Amino acid sequence: MSELIAIYPGTFDPVTHGHTDLIHRASRLFDHVIVAVAANAAKQPLFSLPQRKTLLEAVTQDIHNVSVIGFDNLLVEKAREVHARIILRGLRAVSDFEYEFQLAGINRKLDDQIETVHLMPAEQYTYLSSSMVREIARLRGDISGLVHPVVEQALKSYYEREQH
Amino acid sequence: MSELIAIYPGTFDPVTHGHTDLIHRASRLFDHVIVAVAANAAKQPLFSLPQRKTLLEAVTQDIHNVSVIGFDNLLVEKAREVHARIILRGLRAVSDFEYEFQLAGINRKLDDQIETVHLMPAEQYTYLSSSMVREIARLRGDISGLVHPVVEQALKSYYEREQH
Amino acid sequence: MSELIAIYPGTFDPVTHGHTDLIHRASRLFDHVIVAVAANAAKQPLFSLPQRKTLLEAVTQDIHNVSVIGFDNLLVEKAREVHARIILRGLRAVSDFEYEFQLAGINRKLDDQIETVHLMPAEQYTYLSSSMVREIARLRGDISGLVHPVVEQALKSYYEREQH
Amino acid sequence: MSELIAIYPGTFDPVTHGHTDLIHRASRLFDHVIVAVAANAAKQPLFSLPQRKTLLEAVTQDIHNVSVIGFDNLLVEKAREVHARIILRGLRAVSDFEYEFQLAGINRKLDDQIETVHLMPAEQYTYLSSSMVREIARLRGDISGLVHPVVEQALKSYYEREQH
Amino acid sequence: MSELIAIYPGTFDPVTHGHTDLIHRASRLFDHVIVAVAANAAKQPLFSLPQRKTLLEAVTQDIHNVSVIGFDNLLVEKAREVHARIILRGLRAVSDFEYEFQLAGINRKLDDQIETVHLMPAEQYTYLSSSMVREIARLRGDISGLVHPVVEQALKSYYEREQH
Amino acid sequence: MSELIAIYPGTFDPVTHGHTDLIHRASRLFDHVIVAVAANAAKQPLFSLPQRKTLLEAVTQDIHNVSVIGFDNLLVEKAREVHARIILRGLRAVSDFEYEFQLAGINRKLDDQIETVHLMPAEQYTYLSSSMVREIARLRGDISGLVHPVVEQALKSYYEREQH
Repeated sequence: MSELIAIYPGTFDPVTHGHTDLIHRASRLFDHVIVAVAANAAKQPLFSLPQRKTLLEAVTQDIHNVSVIGFDNLLVEKAREVHARIILRGLRAVSDFEYEFQLAGINRKLDDQIETVHLMPAEQYTYLSSSMVREIARLRGDISGLVHPVVEQALKSYYEREQH
Repeated sequence: MSELIAIYPGTFDPVTHGHTDLIHRASRLFDHVIVAVAANAAKQPLFSLPQRKTLLEAVTQDIHNVSVIGFDNLLVEKAREVHARIILRGLRAVSDFEYEFQLAGINRKLDDQIETVHLMPAEQYTYLSSSMVREIARLRGDISGLVHPVVEQALKSYYEREQH
Repeated sequence: MSELIAIYPGTFDPVTHGHTDLIHRASRLFDHVIVAVAANAAKQPLFSLPQRKTLLEAVTQDIHNVSVIGFDNLLVEKAREVHARIILRGLRAVSDFEYEFQLAGINRKLDDQIETVHLMPAEQYTYLSSSMVREIARLRGDISGLVHPVVEQALKSYYEREQH
Repeated sequence: MSELIAIYPGTFDPVTHGHTDLIHRASRLFDHVIVAVAANAAKQPLFSLPQRKTLLEAVTQDIHNVSVIGFDNLLVEKAREVHARIILRGLRAVSDFEYEFQLAGINRKLDDQIETVHLMPAEQYTYLSSSMVREIARLRGDISGLVHPVVEQALKSYYEREQH
Repeated sequence: MSELIAIYPGTFDPVTHGHTDLIHRASRLFDHVIVAVAANAAKQPLFSLPQRKTLLEAVTQDIHNVSVIGFDNLLVEKAREVHARIILRGLRAVSDFEYEFQLAGINRKLDDQIETVHLMPAEQYTYLSSSMVREIARLRGDISGLVHPVVEQALKSYYEREQH
Repeated sequence: MSELIAIYPGTFDPVTHGHTDLIHRASRLFDHVIVAVAANAAKQPLFSLPQRKTLLEAVTQDIHNVSVIGFDNLLVEKAREVHARIILRGLRAVSDFEYEFQLAGINRKLDDQIETVHLMPAEQYTYLSSSMVREIARLRGDISGLVHPVVEQALKSYYEREQH
């Protein structure tokens, strides 16, 4: 069978240990994992697209079959472009399950040859989300167990700049 | 028994095949179906209220017992005004079920004589929502199987104008 | 439009105030409401089918457009037989919502001309189910606010007989 | 055992009968209940923090072991500051259950000595939320059964001012 | 305020690390925690009521303010009998949330002076249930990280006896 | 990377078009798909294990990289035995999502090297389950669009035999 490539889309604002855990697991299953960072201008991300990509590259640099790209078009188009047959999504007991379903359904309608598969992050990351991490960082809480040190540093710098 | 009139409220920004399917089904059950388009200024709809009404009128013009109105007051007041004894809502497996419950509960508190009834759209529209349609249209994806041609054209015009 | 008949299927083992509330609401909307008691031999109901029908007839005797029947065939067949265009189901925040969806979907597959509509019981009955009522009655708890006096009496008799 | 203090955090924009019911129930269980009003600048509350505190003080003035504070730091820090061993949250069948879980999980990660406990408001308040109340008040609907008269008056004043 | 006693009901067939974790957390909050083992003859438990009580006593013997009782009447009656003002329930992201709600609602209807409070077990026990443990033990899987050694031994003995 | 083998466990009593759709999709992604039929004596399946395997072999005979096995031990043990690194599960909007989570969590606890991935069946099979199919067949309803002709025939034979 030809190479099995999975595309893992998200906003990653910023990447958390939950995301990294999922990327590690996927990298053991698939030939190549492409982390696709959505530009998502509408959501007004805290970090710019280049910053989010740089942080993802830093935290995944030790996994040889992972690469990071940005995208601002339809996910299924980007998937076809990089020859991904799998769209990978994390499925947390506490995530927005309904939204995941809607997304998988609509993506199948747009291209029935690409399958969405859901993978579960480790249980200690079940309660973790990028927005929670941003909120704790904003209030000067300890996020060292939730994100990589480079991400922790980036968040600290951001909120220090903001204060002035 | 006196005429059974159902009011079907929503933002319809824009109307999708899921909405139209529900209107068809309801028109076979009830004497009259009144599609009530919420002004919803807070949500900043993409299409204006008159535009959304015009699109709904276009896609329902072949159903004789359906009419389209706009409203910017309490739904139960509008329902009383048009003598509707039923508030009609679509119920998708992937919709915001909890929100539907809260809405039905509060509307009953406001007027216990009007019942909210939920109807299920056809399974092929389970994953369909107006916001998904807008997002795909914005990224120039194919929405021809999701909305009526007049809606498709309206979305194309909107995003072409926006680009310039 | 021709008469609008709704069929309201269930096991009703036994009928509770939640069921009766729904029947009342439905009787104000539809020309005729047919309560269809499933034989449900597999579930081994506490009350026999004739007993369950008798209790339902007792608690609905004051509503002129309601009748009670038993059935042991496919629901959509029974619905066609009695010319019902609506299958009526209660939807409680705490009910088995997923099961309701599956049932509605499969019934539509079996007959696309019959619509399942969901109606919400009054909030004070949100937590009420036949199995809860049986359990409380078995443990000699007070069920007077949960079921009609004739049902209360029938449950008392049942558990007194069982004790001997 | 030392005094058992519970902190009850929220935006309370404005306090509803659902909140008050929960505070009453909690005040019968715990030695002290501290209602902690989040500044929540990001959400752009309708009422200012001092206004929201004043309304809460008004509706809880008859309960001797309740006090109201504001906060704009991490909840677990505020909890430690006031010696609360319990974070109290309401759990409605129709509330955002998933969000509650995420919040409880992350707060435990930040301080494992503080427990989140969930309490259920009375059933008649299951469908009640601050945002629903604001929406009904904006549209001049009757909110007298949903909030305390002082809150009703405050909302009326707000929307009258806004109209001019 | 008078002593705060919590009753923690369940079938405990058998007690798992998830239950024990919850008992520990509760014992730090409340003056006394009474673990109430339901006879539950209808469910045909694997272990007898005395066996389940003995296992619970073994795994909680180091916590001074915990005691274990059996019951075969209405929970609220047992709660009143032992002067418990709190019914304690675990709330797992993957538990039967709807059932919990129904139970809390019906218990409040039976006695409005007793509050049901929900507490979350540690995240590593989110996926743990007594039925899963029984199933794994039946198939000779490793349950050493899921239950106390005395429970592990009891399950082994049970399935060895069954095989002969 | 070494061969990617997925094991797809279930009771398959009987196999439906929903299962077959999932097997087809998986066969396009993975090198080998092993359908593992659980003996499940406790559930008292309608068809025997050999019968269920025969039906599965019949409906998957045209897919070259699929094989069918039975098992009566721990799933993770069977997975290791056949060198599967993936446990495949279908995820329907209306399926028992919570149960899926619990299962995936416990299987990871038993063997962290095997990942559970969830795949969505085609939308027209969202409402389909083996138990629904059995119920409709029992009541002589039309199941021709829900299962393969050989399964339809097997169910007819079963219920004809039962009637005599």
